[in-house]
Amino acid sequence: MKIRALFFDVFGTLVDWRTCVARESAATLAPLGHDLDWLAFAAAWRDRYQPAMAEVRSGARAYVKLDVLHRENLEKILPDFGIRDLPEAAVAGLSARAWRKLDAWPDVVEGLRRLREKVLIAPCSNGNISLMADLARHNSISWDAVLGAETARDYKPSAGVYDSACAAFDLPPDQCAMVAAHTRDLLAAQKRGLKTIHIARPDENGPGRGEAAPGAPVTIAARDLLQLCDILPA
Amino acid sequence: MKIRALFFDVFGTLVDWRTCVARESAATLAPLGHDLDWLAFAAAWRDRYQPAMAEVRSGARAYVKLDVLHRENLEKILPDFGIRDLPEAAVAGLSARAWRKLDAWPDVVEGLRRLREKVLIAPCSNGNISLMADLARHNSISWDAVLGAETARDYKPSAGVYDSACAAFDLPPDQCAMVAAHTRDLLAAQKRGLKTIHIARPDENGPGRGEAAPGAPVTIAARDLLQLCDILPA
Repeated sequence: MKIRALFFDVFGTLVDWRTCVARESAATLAPLGHDLDWLAFAAAWRDRYQPAMAEVRSGARAYVKLDVLHRENLEKILPDFGIRDLPEAAVAGLSARAWRKLDAWPDVVEGLRRLREKVLIAPCSNGNISLMADLARHNSISWDAVLGAETARDYKPSAGVYDSACAAFDLPPDQCAMVAAHTRDLLAAQKRGLKTIHIARPDENGPGRGEAAPGAPVTIAARDLLQLCDILPA
Repeated sequence: MKIRALFFDVFGTLVDWRTCVARESAATLAPLGHDLDWLAFAAAWRDRYQPAMAEVRSGARAYVKLDVLHRENLEKILPDFGIRDLPEAAVAGLSARAWRKLDAWPDVVEGLRRLREKVLIAPCSNGNISLMADLARHNSISWDAVLGAETARDYKPSAGVYDSACAAFDLPPDQCAMVAAHTRDLLAAQKRGLKTIHIARPDENGPGRGEAAPGAPVTIAARDLLQLCDILPA
Protein backbone atom coordinates (compact mmCIF):
# COMPACT_ATOMS: atom_id res chain seq x y z
CA MET A 1 0.00 0.00 0.00
CA LYS A 2 1.36 3.35 -1.05
CA ILE A 3 2.24 5.92 1.61
CA ARG A 4 0.44 9.16 0.76
CA ALA A 5 1.25 11.31 3.81
CA LEU A 6 4.19 11.67 6.17
CA PHE A 7 3.70 13.02 9.69
CA PHE A 8 6.85 14.32 11.34
CA ASP A 9 7.97 14.47 14.89
CA VAL A 10 9.82 17.78 15.17
CA PHE A 11 11.88 18.19 18.37
CA GLY A 12 14.91 15.98 17.94
CA THR A 13 13.81 14.45 14.65
CA LEU A 14 13.88 17.60 12.51
CA VAL A 15 15.51 20.21 14.73
CA ASP A 16 18.41 20.19 17.17
CA TRP A 17 16.71 21.45 20.33
CA ARG A 18 19.70 20.79 22.59
CA THR A 19 22.41 23.08 21.24
CA CYS A 20 19.91 25.71 20.07
CA VAL A 21 18.04 26.02 23.37
CA ALA A 22 21.45 26.25 25.04
CA ARG A 23 22.47 29.01 22.64
CA GLU A 24 19.23 30.98 23.07
CA SER A 25 19.37 30.61 26.85
CA ALA A 26 22.91 31.95 26.90
CA ALA A 27 21.89 34.83 24.63
CA THR A 28 19.24 35.92 27.13
CA LEU A 29 20.85 35.07 30.45
CA ALA A 30 24.56 35.71 29.96
CA PRO A 31 24.07 39.48 29.44
CA LEU A 32 22.21 39.46 32.79
CA GLY A 33 25.35 38.13 34.46
CA HIS A 34 24.55 34.41 34.58
CA ASP A 35 27.21 31.88 33.68
CA LEU A 36 25.85 28.34 33.46
CA ASP A 37 26.47 25.00 31.80
CA TRP A 38 24.10 25.97 29.00
CA LEU A 39 23.79 22.45 27.59
CA ALA A 40 22.87 21.16 31.04
CA PHE A 41 20.33 23.97 31.30
CA ALA A 42 18.77 22.94 27.98
CA ALA A 43 18.69 19.29 29.08
CA ALA A 44 17.05 20.19 32.39
CA TRP A 45 14.38 22.23 30.57
CA ARG A 46 13.75 19.34 28.21
CA ASP A 47 13.62 16.84 31.11
CA ARG A 48 10.49 18.58 32.40
CA TYR A 49 8.75 18.04 29.06
CA GLN A 50 7.36 14.52 29.45
CA PRO A 51 6.12 14.90 33.08
CA ALA A 52 4.31 18.13 32.18
CA MET A 53 2.53 16.53 29.22
CA ALA A 54 1.70 13.44 31.27
CA GLU A 55 -0.71 15.52 33.35
CA VAL A 56 -2.67 16.41 30.21
CA ARG A 57 -2.52 12.89 28.77
CA SER A 58 -3.87 11.43 32.01
CA GLY A 59 -6.80 13.82 32.00
CA ALA A 60 -5.67 15.41 35.28
CA ARG A 61 -5.29 18.70 33.45
CA ALA A 62 -7.15 20.20 30.48
CA TYR A 63 -5.10 20.68 27.31
CA VAL A 64 -2.86 23.71 27.35
CA LYS A 65 -0.42 24.59 24.58
CA LEU A 66 3.17 23.43 24.81
CA ASP A 67 4.18 27.10 25.00
CA VAL A 68 2.44 27.21 28.38
CA LEU A 69 4.22 24.07 29.60
CA HIS A 70 7.58 25.39 28.37
CA ARG A 71 7.07 28.59 30.35
CA GLU A 72 6.08 26.71 33.52
CA ASN A 73 9.02 24.34 33.13
CA LEU A 74 11.43 27.22 32.72
CA GLU A 75 10.22 28.76 35.96
CA LYS A 76 10.73 25.40 37.69
CA ILE A 77 14.35 24.93 36.59
CA LEU A 78 15.65 28.48 37.07
CA PRO A 79 16.16 28.06 40.87
CA ASP A 80 17.98 24.77 40.24
CA PHE A 81 20.58 26.82 38.38
CA GLY A 82 20.72 29.49 41.07
CA ILE A 83 18.65 31.98 39.10
CA ARG A 84 16.10 33.86 41.20
CA ASP A 85 14.16 37.04 40.60
CA LEU A 86 14.70 37.00 36.83
CA PRO A 87 12.73 39.94 35.39
CA GLU A 88 9.38 38.90 33.94
CA ALA A 89 10.38 40.25 30.54
CA ALA A 90 13.40 37.93 30.48
CA VAL A 91 11.37 34.89 31.53
CA ALA A 92 8.66 35.60 28.97
CA GLY A 93 11.15 36.45 26.24
CA LEU A 94 13.33 33.41 26.76
CA SER A 95 10.33 31.10 27.06
CA ALA A 96 8.77 32.47 23.88
CA ARG A 97 11.96 32.50 21.86
CA ALA A 98 14.09 29.52 22.89
CA TRP A 99 11.94 26.82 21.27
CA ARG A 100 11.24 28.93 18.16
CA LYS A 101 14.84 29.42 17.05
CA LEU A 102 15.77 25.76 16.68
CA ASP A 103 17.91 24.96 13.65
CA ALA A 104 17.06 21.98 11.47
CA TRP A 105 19.52 19.11 11.12
CA PRO A 106 21.51 19.52 7.86
CA ASP A 107 19.41 17.07 5.79
CA VAL A 108 16.00 18.41 6.78
CA VAL A 109 15.24 21.43 4.61
CA GLU A 110 16.26 19.79 1.35
CA GLY A 111 14.82 16.42 2.47
CA LEU A 112 11.38 17.86 3.23
CA ARG A 113 11.36 19.81 -0.02
CA ARG A 114 12.00 16.63 -1.98
CA LEU A 115 9.62 14.49 0.08
CA ARG A 116 6.85 17.05 -0.47
CA GLU A 117 7.14 16.39 -4.21
CA LYS A 118 6.08 12.80 -3.50
CA VAL A 119 3.59 12.97 -0.62
CA LEU A 120 1.67 15.23 1.73
CA ILE A 121 3.80 16.36 4.66
CA ALA A 122 2.77 17.79 8.03
CA PRO A 123 4.30 18.11 11.46
CA CYS A 124 2.66 15.84 14.02
CA SER A 125 4.43 17.33 16.99
CA ASN A 126 3.55 18.12 20.57
CA GLY A 127 4.37 21.73 19.73
CA ASN A 128 1.43 24.09 19.24
CA ILE A 129 0.47 25.60 15.90
CA SER A 130 2.13 29.00 16.37
CA LEU A 131 5.33 27.32 17.54
CA MET A 132 5.33 25.03 14.48
CA ALA A 133 4.63 27.99 12.19
CA ASP A 134 7.53 29.97 13.65
CA LEU A 135 9.90 26.99 13.49
CA ALA A 136 8.97 26.41 9.86
CA ARG A 137 9.70 30.06 9.04
CA HIS A 138 12.99 29.95 10.94
CA ASN A 139 14.10 27.05 8.74
CA SER A 140 12.30 27.89 5.46
CA ILE A 141 10.17 24.76 5.60
CA SER A 142 6.78 24.59 3.84
CA TRP A 143 4.14 22.20 5.19
CA ASP A 144 0.88 21.09 3.61
CA ALA A 145 -0.82 21.67 6.98
CA VAL A 146 0.14 21.95 10.62
CA LEU A 147 -1.30 18.97 12.51
CA GLY A 148 -0.47 17.41 15.86
CA ALA A 149 -1.19 18.05 19.53
CA GLU A 150 -3.10 21.32 19.25
CA THR A 151 -5.44 19.93 16.60
CA ALA A 152 -6.07 16.86 18.77
CA ARG A 153 -6.00 18.79 22.07
CA ASP A 154 -3.91 16.00 23.60
CA TYR A 155 -0.25 15.03 23.57
CA LYS A 156 1.61 12.18 21.89
CA PRO A 157 1.80 9.32 22.42
CA SER A 158 -1.98 9.51 23.02
CA ALA A 159 -3.86 7.74 20.24
CA GLY A 160 -5.98 10.74 19.33
CA VAL A 161 -3.03 12.74 18.07
CA TYR A 162 -2.18 10.17 15.39
CA ASP A 163 -5.84 9.53 14.58
CA SER A 164 -6.61 13.20 14.10
CA ALA A 165 -3.66 13.67 11.74
CA CYS A 166 -4.89 10.88 9.44
CA ALA A 167 -8.44 12.21 9.63
CA ALA A 168 -7.37 15.72 8.65
CA PHE A 169 -5.97 14.36 5.38
CA ASP A 170 -8.91 11.97 4.88
CA LEU A 171 -6.53 9.03 4.72
CA PRO A 172 -6.73 5.57 6.28
CA PRO A 173 -3.84 5.14 8.75
CA ASP A 174 -2.07 2.52 6.63
CA GLN A 175 -1.56 5.16 3.92
CA CYS A 176 0.15 7.42 6.44
CA ALA A 177 3.55 7.11 8.12
CA MET A 178 4.85 8.63 11.31
CA VAL A 179 8.46 9.78 10.97
CA ALA A 180 10.47 10.08 14.19
CA ALA A 181 13.83 9.56 15.80
CA HIS A 182 12.08 8.11 18.86
CA THR A 183 10.95 4.49 18.97
CA ARG A 184 8.30 5.27 21.57
CA ASP A 185 6.55 7.70 19.23
CA LEU A 186 6.67 5.16 16.40
CA LEU A 187 5.27 2.31 18.49
CA ALA A 188 2.31 4.47 19.51
CA ALA A 189 1.65 5.39 15.87
CA GLN A 190 1.98 1.74 14.84
CA LYS A 191 -0.75 0.82 17.33
CA ARG A 192 -3.08 3.23 15.51
CA GLY A 193 -2.34 1.53 12.19
CA LEU A 194 0.18 3.99 10.74
CA LYS A 195 3.35 2.92 9.03
CA THR A 196 6.53 3.86 10.86
CA ILE A 197 9.76 5.48 9.68
CA HIS A 198 12.76 5.84 11.96
CA ILE A 199 15.34 8.54 11.33
CA ALA A 200 18.72 8.15 13.05
CA ARG A 201 19.65 11.09 15.29
CA PRO A 202 22.50 9.51 17.25
CA ASP A 203 23.57 12.80 18.84
CA GLU A 204 20.19 14.26 19.81
CA ASN A 205 20.90 14.36 23.54
CA GLY A 206 24.63 14.84 23.21
CA PRO A 207 27.41 12.98 21.35
CA GLY A 208 26.33 9.35 21.02
CA ARG A 209 23.25 9.97 23.15
CA GLY A 210 20.39 9.51 20.72
CA GLU A 211 18.73 6.71 18.77
CA ALA A 212 21.15 5.57 16.06
CA ALA A 213 18.69 2.82 15.12
CA PRO A 214 15.10 1.92 16.00
CA GLY A 215 14.56 -0.06 19.19
CA ALA A 216 11.77 -2.11 17.63
CA PRO A 217 10.74 -3.20 14.13
CA VAL A 218 9.64 -0.31 11.91
CA THR A 219 8.45 -0.06 8.31
CA ILE A 220 11.53 1.87 7.17
CA ALA A 221 14.71 2.87 9.00
CA ALA A 222 16.67 5.67 7.31
CA ARG A 223 19.88 7.50 8.05
CA ASP A 224 18.28 10.86 7.32
CA LEU A 225 15.52 12.47 5.24
CA LEU A 226 17.59 12.45 2.04
CA GLN A 227 18.04 8.70 2.25
CA LEU A 228 14.35 8.34 3.10
CA CYS A 229 13.48 10.26 -0.03
CA ASP A 230 15.59 7.90 -2.12
CA ILE A 231 13.99 4.74 -0.72
CA LEU A 232 10.38 5.88 -0.21
CA PRO A 233 8.18 4.14 -2.80
CA ALA A 234 7.12 6.76 -5.34
CA MET B 1 -1.72 48.65 15.99
CA LYS B 2 0.33 46.54 13.65
CA ILE B 3 -1.34 43.68 11.77
CA ARG B 4 0.67 40.51 12.42
CA ALA B 5 -1.51 37.86 10.72
CA LEU B 6 -3.78 37.77 7.70
CA PHE B 7 -6.59 35.21 7.46
CA PHE B 8 -7.87 34.60 3.96
CA ASP B 9 -11.22 33.64 2.63
CA VAL B 10 -10.46 31.27 -0.25
CA PHE B 11 -13.45 30.53 -2.54
CA GLY B 12 -13.99 33.66 -4.60
CA THR B 13 -11.34 35.73 -2.81
CA LEU B 14 -8.28 33.72 -3.83
CA VAL B 15 -9.57 31.24 -6.39
CA ASP B 16 -12.03 31.42 -9.26
CA TRP B 17 -14.47 28.66 -8.30
CA ARG B 18 -16.98 29.48 -11.03
CA THR B 19 -15.11 28.86 -14.25
CA CYS B 20 -12.96 26.12 -12.74
CA VAL B 21 -15.84 24.07 -11.32
CA ALA B 22 -17.54 24.47 -14.70
CA ARG B 23 -14.39 23.23 -16.45
CA GLU B 24 -13.93 20.24 -14.09
CA SER B 25 -17.61 19.32 -14.35
CA ALA B 26 -17.42 19.34 -18.12
CA ALA B 27 -14.25 17.24 -18.01
CA THR B 28 -16.07 14.53 -16.06
CA LEU B 29 -19.58 14.70 -17.49
CA ALA B 30 -19.12 15.57 -21.17
CA PRO B 31 -17.32 12.28 -21.92
CA LEU B 32 -20.35 10.53 -20.40
CA GLY B 33 -22.56 12.20 -23.00
CA HIS B 34 -23.88 15.13 -20.99
CA ASP B 35 -24.09 18.58 -22.55
CA LEU B 36 -24.98 21.28 -20.05
CA ASP B 37 -24.61 24.96 -19.42
CA TRP B 38 -21.51 24.28 -17.33
CA LEU B 39 -21.36 27.73 -15.76
CA ALA B 40 -25.00 27.37 -14.68
CA PHE B 41 -24.13 23.96 -13.27
CA ALA B 42 -21.27 25.45 -11.23
CA ALA B 43 -23.53 28.24 -9.99
CA ALA B 44 -26.24 25.76 -8.97
CA TRP B 45 -23.68 23.69 -7.05
CA ARG B 46 -22.42 26.83 -5.29
CA ASP B 47 -25.98 27.96 -4.53
CA ARG B 48 -26.41 24.94 -2.27
CA TYR B 49 -23.35 25.95 -0.25
CA GLN B 50 -24.84 28.42 2.23
CA PRO B 51 -28.03 26.44 3.04
CA ALA B 52 -25.97 23.29 3.69
CA MET B 53 -23.65 25.08 6.10
CA ALA B 54 -26.58 26.81 7.79
CA GLU B 55 -27.67 23.47 9.23
CA VAL B 56 -24.31 23.09 10.94
CA ARG B 57 -24.16 26.70 12.08
CA SER B 58 -27.61 26.43 13.65
CA GLY B 59 -26.62 23.34 15.58
CA ALA B 60 -29.23 21.22 13.79
CA ARG B 61 -26.40 19.07 12.43
CA ALA B 62 -23.00 18.14 13.85
CA TYR B 63 -19.98 19.50 11.98
CA VAL B 64 -19.10 17.60 8.81
CA LYS B 65 -16.36 18.61 6.42
CA LEU B 66 -17.19 20.77 3.43
CA ASP B 67 -16.17 17.83 1.21
CA VAL B 68 -19.21 15.99 2.59
CA LEU B 69 -21.52 18.92 1.92
CA HIS B 70 -20.12 19.35 -1.61
CA ARG B 71 -20.86 15.70 -2.34
CA GLU B 72 -24.42 15.93 -0.99
CA ASN B 73 -25.02 19.14 -2.89
CA LEU B 74 -23.81 17.58 -6.12
CA GLU B 75 -26.26 14.72 -5.70
CA LYS B 76 -29.06 17.25 -5.17
CA ILE B 77 -28.41 19.27 -8.32
CA LEU B 78 -27.72 16.44 -10.77
CA PRO B 79 -31.44 15.71 -11.34
CA ASP B 80 -32.10 19.42 -11.91
CA PHE B 81 -29.82 19.14 -14.93
CA GLY B 82 -31.44 15.94 -16.12
CA ILE B 83 -28.63 13.69 -14.92
CA ARG B 84 -29.81 10.49 -13.29
CA ASP B 85 -28.01 7.23 -12.52
CA LEU B 86 -24.54 8.74 -12.79
CA PRO B 87 -22.07 5.97 -11.84
CA GLU B 88 -20.84 6.23 -8.26
CA ALA B 89 -17.25 6.55 -9.44
CA ALA B 90 -18.18 9.62 -11.49
CA VAL B 91 -20.07 11.23 -8.62
CA ALA B 92 -17.27 10.56 -6.15
CA GLY B 93 -14.56 11.59 -8.59
CA LEU B 94 -16.23 14.83 -9.63
CA SER B 95 -17.11 15.71 -6.06
CA ALA B 96 -13.57 15.07 -4.86
CA ARG B 97 -11.85 16.83 -7.73
CA ALA B 98 -13.96 19.81 -8.76
CA TRP B 99 -13.24 21.99 -5.73
CA ARG B 100 -9.55 20.97 -5.59
CA LYS B 101 -8.58 22.16 -9.07
CA LEU B 102 -9.51 25.79 -8.66
CA ASP B 103 -7.08 28.27 -10.19
CA ALA B 104 -5.99 31.32 -8.23
CA TRP B 105 -6.77 34.79 -9.53
CA PRO B 106 -3.72 36.23 -11.32
CA ASP B 107 -2.48 38.37 -8.40
CA VAL B 108 -2.75 35.69 -5.72
CA VAL B 109 0.37 33.53 -5.89
CA GLU B 110 2.80 36.44 -6.09
CA GLY B 111 0.69 38.49 -3.67
CA LEU B 112 0.68 35.80 -0.98
CA ARG B 113 4.39 35.19 -1.43
CA ARG B 114 5.10 38.86 -0.81
CA LEU B 115 2.58 39.22 2.04
CA ARG B 116 4.15 36.23 3.81
CA GLU B 117 7.40 38.16 4.00
CA LYS B 118 5.58 40.71 6.16
CA VAL B 119 3.08 38.73 8.27
CA LEU B 120 1.76 35.28 9.13
CA ILE B 121 -0.74 34.03 6.55
CA ALA B 122 -3.35 31.28 6.81
CA PRO B 123 -6.54 30.37 5.03
CA CYS B 124 -9.63 30.92 7.18
CA SER B 125 -12.02 29.20 4.82
CA ASN B 126 -15.05 26.99 5.15
CA GLY B 127 -13.10 24.39 3.21
CA ASN B 128 -11.63 21.51 5.18
CA ILE B 129 -7.92 20.99 5.80
CA SER B 130 -7.30 18.41 3.05
CA LEU B 131 -9.16 20.58 0.54
CA MET B 132 -7.07 23.61 1.52
CA ALA B 133 -3.87 21.56 1.32
CA ASP B 134 -4.73 20.34 -2.17
CA LEU B 135 -5.75 23.80 -3.37
CA ALA B 136 -2.48 25.23 -2.06
CA ARG B 137 -0.52 22.56 -3.93
CA HIS B 138 -2.53 23.13 -7.10
CA ASN B 139 -1.52 26.80 -7.00
CA SER B 140 1.96 26.57 -5.40
CA ILE B 141 0.87 28.52 -2.34
CA SER B 142 2.66 28.13 0.99
CA TRP B 143 0.75 28.86 4.21
CA ASP B 144 2.05 29.25 7.74
CA ALA B 145 -0.81 27.02 8.92
CA VAL B 146 -4.20 25.86 7.69
CA LEU B 147 -6.90 27.33 9.94
CA GLY B 148 -10.63 27.84 9.46
CA ALA B 149 -13.81 25.80 9.69
CA GLU B 150 -12.32 22.36 10.40
CA THR B 151 -10.16 23.68 13.24
CA ALA B 152 -13.21 25.40 14.73
CA ARG B 153 -15.67 22.63 13.78
CA ASP B 154 -18.17 25.26 12.68
CA TYR B 155 -18.70 27.38 9.58
CA LYS B 156 -18.19 31.07 8.91
CA PRO B 157 -19.68 33.48 9.69
CA SER B 158 -19.96 31.80 13.12
CA ALA B 159 -17.85 33.66 15.67
CA GLY B 160 -15.84 30.62 16.71
CA VAL B 161 -14.14 30.31 13.33
CA TYR B 162 -12.55 33.76 13.58
CA ASP B 163 -11.80 33.35 17.30
CA SER B 164 -10.04 30.02 16.79
CA ALA B 165 -7.85 31.42 14.02
CA CYS B 166 -6.58 34.24 16.26
CA ALA B 167 -6.09 31.80 19.15
CA ALA B 168 -4.03 29.41 17.00
CA PHE B 169 -1.52 32.20 16.36
CA ASP B 170 -1.69 33.47 19.98
CA LEU B 171 -2.69 36.90 18.74
CA PRO B 172 -5.31 39.32 20.02
CA PRO B 173 -7.94 39.85 17.29
CA ASP B 174 -6.96 43.48 16.68
CA GLN B 175 -3.54 42.27 15.47
CA CYS B 176 -5.25 40.01 12.90
CA ALA B 177 -7.13 40.87 9.73
CA MET B 178 -9.68 38.90 7.78
CA VAL B 179 -9.18 39.26 4.01
CA ALA B 180 -12.21 38.57 1.83
CA ALA B 181 -14.11 39.63 -1.26
CA HIS B 182 -17.36 39.27 0.68
CA THR B 183 -18.65 42.02 2.97
CA ARG B 184 -20.66 39.53 5.04
CA ASP B 185 -17.51 37.60 6.01
CA LEU B 186 -15.73 40.83 6.93
CA LEU B 187 -18.60 42.14 9.08
CA ALA B 188 -18.63 38.89 11.04
CA ALA B 189 -14.86 39.10 11.60
CA GLN B 190 -15.17 42.75 12.60
CA LYS B 191 -17.65 41.78 15.31
CA ARG B 192 -14.97 39.49 16.78
CA GLY B 193 -12.50 42.35 16.90
CA LEU B 194 -10.45 41.56 13.78
CA LYS B 195 -9.39 44.18 11.29
CA THR B 196 -10.97 43.81 7.86
CA ILE B 197 -9.51 43.90 4.36
CA HIS B 198 -11.71 43.84 1.28
CA ILE B 199 -10.34 42.56 -2.02
CA ALA B 200 -12.29 43.46 -5.15
CA ARG B 201 -13.44 40.45 -7.18
CA PRO B 202 -15.98 42.15 -9.45
CA ASP B 203 -16.43 39.10 -11.69
CA GLU B 204 -16.62 36.33 -9.08
CA ASN B 205 -20.14 35.22 -10.02
CA GLY B 206 -19.87 36.17 -13.68
CA PRO B 207 -18.95 39.39 -15.51
CA GLY B 208 -19.83 42.32 -13.23
CA ARG B 209 -21.43 39.99 -10.69
CA GLY B 210 -19.13 40.26 -7.70
CA GLU B 211 -18.16 42.80 -5.07
CA ALA B 212 -16.14 45.54 -6.77
CA ALA B 213 -16.05 47.42 -3.46
CA PRO B 214 -17.00 46.69 0.16
CA GLY B 215 -20.63 47.17 1.12
CA ALA B 216 -19.69 48.53 4.55
CA PRO B 217 -16.73 50.32 6.13
CA VAL B 218 -13.57 48.17 6.32
CA THR B 219 -10.03 48.76 7.58
CA ILE B 220 -8.51 48.51 4.10
CA ALA B 221 -10.06 48.11 0.65
CA ALA B 222 -7.64 46.90 -2.01
CA ARG B 223 -7.91 46.14 -5.70
CA ASP B 224 -5.96 42.90 -5.31
CA LEU B 225 -3.30 41.26 -3.13
CA LEU B 226 -0.44 43.05 -4.85
CA GLN B 227 -1.93 46.43 -4.02
CA LEU B 228 -2.64 45.21 -0.49
CA CYS B 229 1.01 44.29 -0.12
CA ASP B 230 2.03 47.79 -1.16
CA ILE B 231 -0.26 49.53 1.33
CA LEU B 232 -0.13 47.13 4.30
CA PRO B 233 1.83 48.79 7.12
CA ALA B 234 5.19 47.00 7.39
